[in-house]
Amino acid sequence: MDKIRVGLVGITGYTGMELARLLVSHPSMELVMGCSRSESGRRLGEFYPFLEGLPGSDVVISVYNAKSVAEACDVVFLAVPHGKAMVMAGELADLGVRVVDLSADFRIHDVNVYEAWYKVTHTRTDLLPKAVYGLPELYAAEVAKATLVANPGCYPTSAILGLAPALQAGLVSSADIVIDSKSGTSGAGRKAQTTSLFCEVYDSFKAYGLGKHRHTPEIEQELSLLAGTPLTVSFNPHLVPMNRGILTTIYTKLIVEASMDEIWQTYRDFYKDKPFVRVLAKGSLPETRNVRGSLFCDIGLVQDPRTGRLIIVSAIDNICRGASGQALANANLMFGLPVSAGLGQAPLLP
Amino acid sequence: MDKIRVGLVGITGYTGMELARLLVSHPSMELVMGCSRSESGRRLGEFYPFLEGLPGSDVVISVYNAKSVAEACDVVFLAVPHGKAMVMAGELADLGVRVVDLSADFRIHDVNVYEAWYKVTHTRTDLLPKAVYGLPELYAAEVAKATLVANPGCYPTSAILGLAPALQAGLVSSADIVIDSKSGTSGAGRKAQTTSLFCEVYDSFKAYGLGKHRHTPEIEQELSLLAGTPLTVSFNPHLVPMNRGILTTIYTKLIVEASMDEIWQTYRDFYKDKPFVRVLAKGSLPETRNVRGSLFCDIGLVQDPRTGRLIIVSAIDNICRGASGQALANANLMFGLPVSAGLGQAPLLP
Amino acid sequence: MDKIRVGLVGITGYTGMELARLLVSHPSMELVMGCSRSESGRRLGEFYPFLEGLPGSDVVISVYNAKSVAEACDVVFLAVPHGKAMVMAGELADLGVRVVDLSADFRIHDVNVYEAWYKVTHTRTDLLPKAVYGLPELYAAEVAKATLVANPGCYPTSAILGLAPALQAGLVSSADIVIDSKSGTSGAGRKAQTTSLFCEVYDSFKAYGLGKHRHTPEIEQELSLLAGTPLTVSFNPHLVPMNRGILTTIYTKLIVEASMDEIWQTYRDFYKDKPFVRVLAKGSLPETRNVRGSLFCDIGLVQDPRTGRLIIVSAIDNICRGASGQALANANLMFGLPVSAGLGQAPLLP
Amino acid sequence: MDKIRVGLVGITGYTGMELARLLVSHPSMELVMGCSRSESGRRLGEFYPFLEGLPGSDVVISVYNAKSVAEACDVVFLAVPHGKAMVMAGELADLGVRVVDLSADFRIHDVNVYEAWYKVTHTRTDLLPKAVYGLPELYAAEVAKATLVANPGCYPTSAILGLAPALQAGLVSSADIVIDSKSGTSGAGRKAQTTSLFCEVYDSFKAYGLGKHRHTPEIEQELSLLAGTPLTVSFNPHLVPMNRGILTTIYTKLIVEASMDEIWQTYRDFYKDKPFVRVLAKGSLPETRNVRGSLFCDIGLVQDPRTGRLIIVSAIDNICRGASGQALANANLMFGLPVSAGLGQAPLLP
Repeated sequence: MDKIRVGLVGITGYTGMELARLLVSHPSMELVMGCSRSESGRRLGEFYPFLEGLPGSDVVISVYNAKSVAEACDVVFLAVPHGKAMVMAGELADLGVRVVDLSADFRIHDVNVYEAWYKVTHTRTDLLPKAVYGLPELYAAEVAKATLVANPGCYPTSAILGLAPALQAGLVSSADIVIDSKSGTSGAGRKAQTTSLFCEVYDSFKAYGLGKHRHTPEIEQELSLLAGTPLTVSFNPHLVPMNRGILTTIYTKLIVEASMDEIWQTYRDFYKDKPFVRVLAKGSLPETRNVRGSLFCDIGLVQDPRTGRLIIVSAIDNICRGASGQALANANLMFGLPVSAGLGQAPLLP
Repeated sequence: MDKIRVGLVGITGYTGMELARLLVSHPSMELVMGCSRSESGRRLGEFYPFLEGLPGSDVVISVYNAKSVAEACDVVFLAVPHGKAMVMAGELADLGVRVVDLSADFRIHDVNVYEAWYKVTHTRTDLLPKAVYGLPELYAAEVAKATLVANPGCYPTSAILGLAPALQAGLVSSADIVIDSKSGTSGAGRKAQTTSLFCEVYDSFKAYGLGKHRHTPEIEQELSLLAGTPLTVSFNPHLVPMNRGILTTIYTKLIVEASMDEIWQTYRDFYKDKPFVRVLAKGSLPETRNVRGSLFCDIGLVQDPRTGRLIIVSAIDNICRGASGQALANANLMFGLPVSAGLGQAPLLP
Repeated sequence: MDKIRVGLVGITGYTGMELARLLVSHPSMELVMGCSRSESGRRLGEFYPFLEGLPGSDVVISVYNAKSVAEACDVVFLAVPHGKAMVMAGELADLGVRVVDLSADFRIHDVNVYEAWYKVTHTRTDLLPKAVYGLPELYAAEVAKATLVANPGCYPTSAILGLAPALQAGLVSSADIVIDSKSGTSGAGRKAQTTSLFCEVYDSFKAYGLGKHRHTPEIEQELSLLAGTPLTVSFNPHLVPMNRGILTTIYTKLIVEASMDEIWQTYRDFYKDKPFVRVLAKGSLPETRNVRGSLFCDIGLVQDPRTGRLIIVSAIDNICRGASGQALANANLMFGLPVSAGLGQAPLLP
Repeated sequence: MDKIRVGLVGITGYTGMELARLLVSHPSMELVMGCSRSESGRRLGEFYPFLEGLPGSDVVISVYNAKSVAEACDVVFLAVPHGKAMVMAGELADLGVRVVDLSADFRIHDVNVYEAWYKVTHTRTDLLPKAVYGLPELYAAEVAKATLVANPGCYPTSAILGLAPALQAGLVSSADIVIDSKSGTSGAGRKAQTTSLFCEVYDSFKAYGLGKHRHTPEIEQELSLLAGTPLTVSFNPHLVPMNRGILTTIYTKLIVEASMDEIWQTYRDFYKDKPFVRVLAKGSLPETRNVRGSLFCDIGLVQDPRTGRLIIVSAIDNICRGASGQALANANLMFGLPVSAGLGQAPLLP
């Protein structure tokens, strides 16, 4: 059978790099086109020496053109900034190509909320109802029928997967949720800026954007749906001097009498048959290295009787699970492949 | 004038190493004795090559003996494990030497609480009433008169300094405090154990001891005193792949109507004339690198109107401010020196 | 077809960990037995949480017993210390099982040289003539017929691959070779020792074992064969604060008149049809990240007309190419599989 | 006595940052002026939060103007790019201010060599004869009388201090010197560029500029003077994922019969009374962490009888010893202060 032809717009960032990496191992997809204005004309293997000699390395980087992309590709991943993505996704959708958009442009159902947080006007609101929020554990069936998938943000993926079972089961209060997330530096992107320099990040730790990060409305949208009631969260990101990974510590208040066993079983049941969520044994806590390079989300649970809290800790790889790997899983679903096609590699340790 | 003669018991750990470093620059103290059973007989400059050629490097490491220490030293720093420290502190106190104990043995006023959390019997409860909790911003006057100082833990230092102004002023609820701390790896000590190996820590991030860390009762004791009412906190530590530094993010609920300006002014007023606490400009957040190697505690404040919370972020150097530097500041106070004697160096960046 | 049954003795170190990781993706091998005295009785997925849910995770760690291993396995990887390995390899060879030994025990043809450098008596010299030095680019045909493969050391792999074309073609002097290698910290192993602690390694760089490292005779043996004359090298290792990777900078003296183009072509020709050695474009230099987690060896070449030198730089992943991945490639060859079976994944960046 | 008034042109780079840090502890100098076009108008303590509350933090950053600088300052440090520095140094020299130039503009005595390597025309060759190469161990007397000091480069400092005793004593061949240097990332400067981003550097290692680095002629100039004969070296830099530090491994050929004791004694004698060079005990090798933040240069010596080589390893802090700290030491000498004034702090570990 012919392979599914994949296009990738936005090759130079970390999510583009990660997609190129993951496609090397995919049994039934192949990268046939890679777009970047600044690097057009270069072979991908020259631009990314790690790719040299591997599938995809002979693709010559080209400038994005909707028509050419639509002709050459069965599915397109958009790894471009928000605002730009809605235009491209619109063009490609109009031309009948399936699109996985890694930007935020189609994640938020309420356009007013989107525009308030992202400070841009949404020019393709017509597509919002068609776009599916691509978190496979929650929306696999919808993704399978979608032509436009809004790939979730990295922080939201870790927060939503961590809270979904507890909120859906009504174990915890929806009115008192604190989400303290810690991300590796690839989350800041590949743009040349002083604050992302090695010597500004290494051997240091900081918080940023407390209470104001743009992933907040995305988290609230999905958690509200799970809880069955509108809720507000306190979401607070931090920067870790490491390449990849997000560890999210979630502080909730238990509102039912439940033993640790019952809570744990609720989580296990919720993620039954979901191969990429691992609810850890009681007493175990996740570490980002255990999910490095993979689609896994590891979840640890701690009941604190002194404070009546349930503390949930989730760990993902921010680039793989939080972006490109999840995008590939969504593409798998869109083409009727197993969600895990090409994503079965073990995490890389140490 | 003759220099104050300093003894240091427990030379091989990171707090002992840090004290040796700091004493190099002290204008009126000198290291005259360093004790370690395992390394006795070696010159300090041989054991710590970084010290070679500097004051203190010619001290020959010896086995601890209370009498010899008491004769040779005006003040002794105990950088030994809890349990062991109470015995030594007792012996030395009996012999009339001033002691700064870096262990937890004399931090907790209530011996039952101590014994419940630390799982040892306290054998020198007679000294508990004499011991002063050595947080200079709160207890400088008491420290100045003390002969036995219980040097605060690293996490408690960051949490208490962050919360003190808000709790004392009644700005935030004492019933709903979440403390999410992130520490550099030196906090795990210098013991050879697999979990502290470079390749187990580097490029990864994890939580540990959620809700169960032994620093919890120490934090609650001091915060209860500040709030004027017994309180319980949810304290949760994490491990950062970096050498030094603690960043603590504290989630509180505002219980008074207060503008950001008023909150900020409350903090500024509280730390007026305290040279080592820097309340950052509004909108700024601390980073651990900005306090590296120093006694500074940097505090950032964020009011989140969406959730009614005040988020407090504090950054310290866990070994300097969180242990050895603070111990030296306490010794300064005990001998009538300025609190900052020998501690005026700038943080080391990058 | 039934999968080839793999046994792994020495599961707790980094090479054992890496083999477990790589076997997850192997299309025709499966891990059926894992041995470790200290961890016996535990499920592999419990011991290595990153493996949970993946092939091999249900293997229960057992104590090594030659007979049981021989019955259960078609091939055995020995990831145990030298000295111990020769005994096990002997037992298993006697029982007719194919063995890939990751230790040094069968690498050195001259037993006197082995015993002088490793300070142990070789008790299975009878097997030395049968053992094949498993560097696939040089000995693929011999490995295909072997029942005992001596898997090369990490430093030797990087040095030999870097020098082989130049020495075989007689481009450089065999009398004046300096090899300056820099290794990630996983090369120091997973033993709990102070010098490998995170805070002892991070943000620092050092040399060690200059002129005395045990990989020296292995390098000299293979380079002498390539040069067709006995030679001595100055081999000098350094420790880099990173997880994986070796970068080796090799200083040679050119002894023929050759243009950069000719030198480069000699290298390209030598490694023609060798999928895992990438001779970089002229002007490019390798970086360890470009080979992370893979079997690639990237080679850069610099001609320095000012000093008449050819400088060769090679980069490998010390655990994958320098140990476990190469062991797997050798096992592939022993079973008539393509050398790259299960090893086609892209390097992991960032 | 009034403090010596210090001006610092080029405040935003790592060398400017380091000078600001070191001046905090200087007993008889004070920072009175800091220049930067891009940051003018900001308080130094606002631009560098680590400095807040310390001496110098209240300086308001201004745009460089030769006359204003000359009026306000007794000595000026130029932490600006080469080319730019020669103009400023010229203006300030003409106005009678003492200058320590951290750029390369006045390091190379032969203007042709300078122009060939740096690709700029030297516009102030009149000052070249007046400029003193500021390596205190070699030129303290000349620096004491100088008004313009050319502060050495970081790599040259480590290479020259490592080789000086051996070359001056004629122990090693001047015709066969390989210098393999490894530098922390601060050496790449603070400019926003993709190649210096955290995720491009972390957990990786690479070589760069082999045989072509601009520090080569500076090294050769000084080593030729020490050897008493013109010599050529092979100098090759590498990038380490750490903040600070250079470790240089130097490969030489012994040309005299000398025992390790004699070689070691030659080094000890050469650096007698030089407080900042520590010739390590035989068998010890330097580590960059042992000199972090200090002016120390640690030197280890290894005689390799198998190859007839003397291997010299030197470790410095590239920003302190390799730039700003050395500049301050030179300023000390220019004003008749002890070379170590303000530079007596211990290295920071871990």
